Amino acid sequence: MTEHTVSAFDTELSSLRSTVVEMGGFAEKMVEDATRALVRRDPDLAQTIIAADIRLDNLQREVEERAILTIARRQPMAVDLREIVSAIRVAGDIERIGDLAKNIAKRTVAIGNQFQPPKIVVGVQHMSDLVQEQLKDVLDGYTQHDADVALAVWNRDGDIDALYTSLFRELLTYMMEDPRNIGFCTHLLFSAKNIERIGDHTTNIAETINYLVTGETLGPERPKADKSSFTTVDIAKS
Amino acid sequence: MTEHTVSAFDTELSSLRSTVVEMGGFAEKMVEDATRALVRRDPDLAQTIIAADIRLDNLQREVEERAILTIARRQPMAVDLREIVSAIRVAGDIERIGDLAKNIAKRTVAIGNQFQPPKIVVGVQHMSDLVQEQLKDVLDGYTQHDADVALAVWNRDGDIDALYTSLFRELLTYMMEDPRNIGFCTHLLFSAKNIERIGDHTTNIAETINYLVTGETLGPERPKADKSSFTTVDIAKS
Repeated sequence: MTEHTVSAFDTELSSLRSTVVEMGGFAEKMVEDATRALVRRDPDLAQTIIAADIRLDNLQREVEERAILTIARRQPMAVDLREIVSAIRVAGDIERIGDLAKNIAKRTVAIGNQFQPPKIVVGVQHMSDLVQEQLKDVLDGYTQHDADVALAVWNRDGDIDALYTSLFRELLTYMMEDPRNIGFCTHLLFSAKNIERIGDHTTNIAETINYLVTGETLGPERPKADKSSFTTVDIAKS
Repeated sequence: MTEHTVSAFDTELSSLRSTVVEMGGFAEKMVEDATRALVRRDPDLAQTIIAADIRLDNLQREVEERAILTIARRQPMAVDLREIVSAIRVAGDIERIGDLAKNIAKRTVAIGNQFQPPKIVVGVQHMSDLVQEQLKDVLDGYTQHDADVALAVWNRDGDIDALYTSLFRELLTYMMEDPRNIGFCTHLLFSAKNIERIGDHTTNIAETINYLVTGETLGPERPKADKSSFTTVDIAKS
């Protein structure tokens, strides 16, 4: 390989990485805005999020195409190959985070001006704050190739899952108390689930960073504290 | 390229393809079993599905790794590159289909022996039948590189979304009628959503097949008839 080739290759790699970082920043903003729109019942803000998501879809396709072409053209060594594969994976997770934020925005439009119990709103906000912090940390970890930061994010995901499970229970209780709550509580339920899934994708990114830095796969299973799929509600209580 | 190299490359490609097809068959079975377990309230069958999902996760990683190595080693031409990229994408969608089937199985365990309204059960079964048919068709389309089959699947996804939206409304009605229904109806709601999302991944696979065969991307948006994120319930009715 000539100096010139090495340098062109490095440029391709770093440009790939910076597109992924750009996507990450965009997704962070979408999650923040989607939560704000939901909590403040702001359908106009929600509409802008719905419209913005296409940008992440396009960037993800672009990353994938450029990455594959780079692999095909350069035949990179193991460590560079990991860098490229990681860019594909992280871009994929970020794109899905954007989809989930968009879905929260759609539900915000549906909920409109219906009353939301303050305790639930606080719970959703708190859960989203945690997820946003995780997302920020994991994107820093990606930029800095820092496996320790990634591992910390990975280990903290259980907190979000636990929060989701308790919010899930609370929402069911509201639904049982008054059938008029069922419509918007269902949208809040799916919104909370979306936030929890954003947390899962953040954890995926943490796993990818670990693979990028160490070449090894985390596993077999991260600590999983979302028990809501297994939750049964004591129907006698209602 | 020598004859020997070409033949080894072809072997790699066809082995990659057959692993993806194997994954597809496995996912079909998971969706079928998950629906059967849910509809017949069979927690034992559900547990076997939960345990089986790890196989798809492992196969997906294997496909991804082998695909990337093939690209790096062989520097394939455009058409072969599309074949490899498609294998990665389809394997990714199939793996997620497995996750969604697993989540339905978890909810089946949670629902246990609680009464399920026959009309809802019929609706879920019908929706799942449609999705399974789509999945079968799209996997045939992948095996045969048939863009027409893929396009037909892509166009039919609206039916599933419409079915989901009507099931969603029906479930909300049941919840409003009797708060004791809320617990298991919520699990049914998420299960129906999971089936709808399996339909979305099937559509993704159809898009990938189209790209594989024609080199072009479908878009910008497929017909989207799932309006449930936008659904408001007439709360005066309850």
